[in-house]
Amino acid sequence: MLVVMRQDATQQQINDVVDAIDALGFEARPLPGSQRTVVGVIGNDGRVDSTRLEALSGVFRVIHVTAAYTLVSREHQSETTIVTIAPSVQVGGTNVVVMAGPCSVESEEQIVATARAVRAAGAACLRGGAFKPRSSPYSFQGLGKRGLELLALARRETGLPIVTEAMDEAGAEMVAELGDCIQIGARNMQNFSLLKAVAKLGKPVLLKRGMAATINDLLLSAEYILAAGNNQVILCERGVRTFDPASRTMFDLTAIPAVQALSHLPIIADPSHGTGQRDRVIPMSRAAIAAGADGLLVEVHPNPERARSDGPQALHPEQFASLMDDVRAIAGVIGRTLARAPGTAEARVG
Amino acid sequence: MLVVMRQDATQQQINDVVDAIDALGFEARPLPGSQRTVVGVIGNDGRVDSTRLEALSGVFRVIHVTAAYTLVSREHQSETTIVTIAPSVQVGGTNVVVMAGPCSVESEEQIVATARAVRAAGAACLRGGAFKPRSSPYSFQGLGKRGLELLALARRETGLPIVTEAMDEAGAEMVAELGDCIQIGARNMQNFSLLKAVAKLGKPVLLKRGMAATINDLLLSAEYILAAGNNQVILCERGVRTFDPASRTMFDLTAIPAVQALSHLPIIADPSHGTGQRDRVIPMSRAAIAAGADGLLVEVHPNPERARSDGPQALHPEQFASLMDDVRAIAGVIGRTLARAPGTAEARVG
Amino acid sequence: MLVVMRQDATQQQINDVVDAIDALGFEARPLPGSQRTVVGVIGNDGRVDSTRLEALSGVFRVIHVTAAYTLVSREHQSETTIVTIAPSVQVGGTNVVVMAGPCSVESEEQIVATARAVRAAGAACLRGGAFKPRSSPYSFQGLGKRGLELLALARRETGLPIVTEAMDEAGAEMVAELGDCIQIGARNMQNFSLLKAVAKLGKPVLLKRGMAATINDLLLSAEYILAAGNNQVILCERGVRTFDPASRTMFDLTAIPAVQALSHLPIIADPSHGTGQRDRVIPMSRAAIAAGADGLLVEVHPNPERARSDGPQALHPEQFASLMDDVRAIAGVIGRTLARAPGTAEARVG
Amino acid sequence: MLVVMRQDATQQQINDVVDAIDALGFEARPLPGSQRTVVGVIGNDGRVDSTRLEALSGVFRVIHVTAAYTLVSREHQSETTIVTIAPSVQVGGTNVVVMAGPCSVESEEQIVATARAVRAAGAACLRGGAFKPRSSPYSFQGLGKRGLELLALARRETGLPIVTEAMDEAGAEMVAELGDCIQIGARNMQNFSLLKAVAKLGKPVLLKRGMAATINDLLLSAEYILAAGNNQVILCERGVRTFDPASRTMFDLTAIPAVQALSHLPIIADPSHGTGQRDRVIPMSRAAIAAGADGLLVEVHPNPERARSDGPQALHPEQFASLMDDVRAIAGVIGRTLARAPGTAEARVG
Repeated sequence: MLVVMRQDATQQQINDVVDAIDALGFEARPLPGSQRTVVGVIGNDGRVDSTRLEALSGVFRVIHVTAAYTLVSREHQSETTIVTIAPSVQVGGTNVVVMAGPCSVESEEQIVATARAVRAAGAACLRGGAFKPRSSPYSFQGLGKRGLELLALARRETGLPIVTEAMDEAGAEMVAELGDCIQIGARNMQNFSLLKAVAKLGKPVLLKRGMAATINDLLLSAEYILAAGNNQVILCERGVRTFDPASRTMFDLTAIPAVQALSHLPIIADPSHGTGQRDRVIPMSRAAIAAGADGLLVEVHPNPERARSDGPQALHPEQFASLMDDVRAIAGVIGRTLARAPGTAEARVG
Repeated sequence: MLVVMRQDATQQQINDVVDAIDALGFEARPLPGSQRTVVGVIGNDGRVDSTRLEALSGVFRVIHVTAAYTLVSREHQSETTIVTIAPSVQVGGTNVVVMAGPCSVESEEQIVATARAVRAAGAACLRGGAFKPRSSPYSFQGLGKRGLELLALARRETGLPIVTEAMDEAGAEMVAELGDCIQIGARNMQNFSLLKAVAKLGKPVLLKRGMAATINDLLLSAEYILAAGNNQVILCERGVRTFDPASRTMFDLTAIPAVQALSHLPIIADPSHGTGQRDRVIPMSRAAIAAGADGLLVEVHPNPERARSDGPQALHPEQFASLMDDVRAIAGVIGRTLARAPGTAEARVG
Repeated sequence: MLVVMRQDATQQQINDVVDAIDALGFEARPLPGSQRTVVGVIGNDGRVDSTRLEALSGVFRVIHVTAAYTLVSREHQSETTIVTIAPSVQVGGTNVVVMAGPCSVESEEQIVATARAVRAAGAACLRGGAFKPRSSPYSFQGLGKRGLELLALARRETGLPIVTEAMDEAGAEMVAELGDCIQIGARNMQNFSLLKAVAKLGKPVLLKRGMAATINDLLLSAEYILAAGNNQVILCERGVRTFDPASRTMFDLTAIPAVQALSHLPIIADPSHGTGQRDRVIPMSRAAIAAGADGLLVEVHPNPERARSDGPQALHPEQFASLMDDVRAIAGVIGRTLARAPGTAEARVG
Repeated sequence: MLVVMRQDATQQQINDVVDAIDALGFEARPLPGSQRTVVGVIGNDGRVDSTRLEALSGVFRVIHVTAAYTLVSREHQSETTIVTIAPSVQVGGTNVVVMAGPCSVESEEQIVATARAVRAAGAACLRGGAFKPRSSPYSFQGLGKRGLELLALARRETGLPIVTEAMDEAGAEMVAELGDCIQIGARNMQNFSLLKAVAKLGKPVLLKRGMAATINDLLLSAEYILAAGNNQVILCERGVRTFDPASRTMFDLTAIPAVQALSHLPIIADPSHGTGQRDRVIPMSRAAIAAGADGLLVEVHPNPERARSDGPQALHPEQFASLMDDVRAIAGVIGRTLARAPGTAEARVG
């Protein structure tokens, strides 16, 4: 950490900063420059709350040279963490894991048909929402526990492990019981009470980037989960808010290599929410794989025109199958292969 | 609602849209143009989930002419809602309500001293955090229930009603018991489970705008609370994320007149979080009042250099007193007066 | 300047950085920390192009402690620059200068009527566009040189000095000849060729902040003009692009105190472009003055319904007159007064 | 175009809107809804300046159903425009055109060595800046005309056509004389005087998206060039400003499919400026091709550590050669091939 003093800072103010750093238990190293003095803080590990130093007289600003997160950083652990969703479905290795399914679970028929279709095309996980965070209280909010039961039924039919969102502690416990990976949505990325609760449920967590979250924020939220003892965290880029209404959000694929340089946690991409339009999901899924994503989260619906939520961004099953061919080929160009779904009797027959 | 068709949409596709609108129970009114057809939807009240129409073939886009919120809109209720925090402390009328206090409750001495100082300067409410959402798990997270008890103690000493944040359902119940107004922070603005839970606790709610929330999002989140039967909602502008690192967030004061035109709910401004620097809090507090804010939320600390959180943005008590003189004068220019704190024996003596 | 090394940087890499700093003519001061080394650069004055250091192996990032601008900084010159548009119209002192007029000059009748009205209400300058940068090639682009002549005519009639935009070098020469202050629009803030050309014309320059310009960018663009020998520069906040479509741009009033802390150049605000809607111009003009702006740029049109550009944001003359009463009173609260227009025979009679 | 009336609009206000539409020469078609009336405008071609309608009493807002651009739209011309930079170098067909070279031309040795290296790796064009727009007046501004002459020399040596930036009219004329494609940089995207001037020089134009430009803005700026009679325009995505400092700008690859749906103009991507860091240029170049870009603009420098500008984002020649192998393979997956440089004697030998 570096404390940059104002140009007009007095020697007394510099001394006060040095004393305050001492009082925090660190070593202060003043570095007088031609225009101003910078005081280095030696011995901290990135966990210092700099508020107290920033508030001192004569301080221009405090620069965090070391990131505020520790456990999630690539410097803390150099090899990429492997997150195991099911025996053969591991995120973070050379395999690319494609998770596909409808935005919302709507009925047994819908979810089972989708699960069969995405498995046949090569998906390794089934995604689908039972609890739906919606900006409007009047939009469809999901089937709740009944939705989770239908997802579990689809897993029995196809063998696909289940990734699904929880919006609160009670829901997270249900997801931990009936599903395989607990998704925390973008709007809850900084719901720290939920992060702490979810960390303790013994399941992998899929943490989506908030719509105004910097990559630093995303890693700090993941740090909450690791600090609570759970390192099975998958990050997910799903688009951020910008000034351009041309897309619902701006899909920040550069986050893929940026996160991979900073953290050992795997990161996947959600081109469905990231673009919001079916025609863009296809090229941007290809692009995400080319950028090095460890997986994809793609919305597929047997009948998008009748979807109860997010129909415009859901792929038709045949579009998804065609996309998977491209994804497989592009993964091959950069030395990766697609993860395969766990084998089941139904799946082998179907 | 208007369904805009593609230029190359076929008559069959237009007919399908008309049929889908009929099936939703509304009346379709096609409006053929020189380049494309627009189909109007008559009879909806803004609560239609447009997903199904957007997903139909030949549809270019769906335009929501009527807002998705209803209960919070100025068109639904023309007079401004008065939110009563304490008998004499009402937000939304001609009075301007100033809420002041430290970012975090740290000790009995600190909170009582601050409460006395802000009351003496003219504040009508005491703010202070017991539960603190922090981006980093290693930052000070507040005193929790003990902090609420200290706030209640400061209220007994000064008569100032208490505004404080809740981060989850359990915390909200404690705040409802010990405080006077439940604050929902920016990071939880779209924590819909929490919004629904808080709505039922019988206390006014102070809902802060999320850092990437549009004004439309903010009003939709408020709609969740009103739809659950609680109309005692105060909105709060506190800055949004933009590209400029010159301020921690960009303080969007235009949100004040914009919200006042769209909604009957009162709106206040938080220049402390909105600017992040003490020197900017003073001019921007004046500006917020001049823009027509129904109140201010200002951080004041008896010793900002020793604050456990957000010290750089906390005003010294004497700065706050001086600011209150300006605020009183500017409010007067636009025909408003400052709300006064409820009278108490201690306050009268002190 | 500080060069932060990677945690895994070798001693050789650190030595190479030290050598490179020496080669640039500065002194290197390594500061080994517990996790990584930072190398301080002593003796630079903010003008170093850090590209070469950033590209060296083992470098994590380069931090500019001193700003890249020099001449515009408050540290370079502590007293605020006074920009003189006309003998009695000085921007940057205790006076607040209100510049008002139509978006575009449309006709002699329109510009003279507007000039008379805004002068009567207390404006000190006349604004009006002869050259109009428009996003669409099919929108009205202004009357060009004829517009400048009409502005000069209105000045003869009312004594109000003229502020008007130039879009290119040829236009700037005409504005310098016929007007009193050359405006550089937001879209040209980083048209460096134009900045260099305008700096040499011997007239004050009104430099508007670009829609995606940080405050640092704005000051660097002003530095171009000062570096070319012209210190008569007025900065102007007019709104920046954000994610919220609720306003055309987000009016960043915090830029006022932020710029005043960093630079000695005066800064005014343009609430008309900053909000885009008449009903918001009035509260945000008041707010700008309360925030400490050195002036306002306000669009007024005798008949906004018939304006050839930006009608929705133009005030009716009577609205402007009423606003000026509020502006005068708020300026008084913070110890400022309104600048008055230069006296002329016509103005005295009219 | 649709004029949405306020809920409380009177019949007289609706009639006034109808009359105003008539006066503009279009047909008005009122569509009364359950809550408000919408008035359709029939017969316009997207070029209407809606200011006059927006300013009328009782109008809530005006919705542009048809885009404001015409000539650049895919609806105006369904087949993609082929832009010919040199006989064998055409952008917009099945070929992918890679343009590579240093940020700035620095010396004969540097530019010729780079040209040879990028040609050997498979680039079809040479890029390099002679006129450099720099945020700071103290940064290296390019060699000017001498830089253009060195580029022309490199073309003679390698056969690679030249793409280089112009910042003003005088510079554009020089580029038109000595180069093959005139680049308009992000900061000048809305320098409309320059766009009009460049359009008439008889050379292809590479138009970069501004850092706060929506896709709509980008297409409107291109419309300026087509409206002046030049359809040889290549668009370029190079990153936009957002709240996240993790990258210099956010590289918006979704712009590729979005523009391809809206316009017939080809679009390429600049991952060097789009990411700002060498390690990210490689994955994001691959991603851009996977997303369907018609070409790449990549910075390569024989010795990035000694580059006079933008060294940290320049690839080493061997990195570029390796990247080209991936690009070739990914292009193949989606049915595209790389454009080849024009044959020259030197190139054949070298």
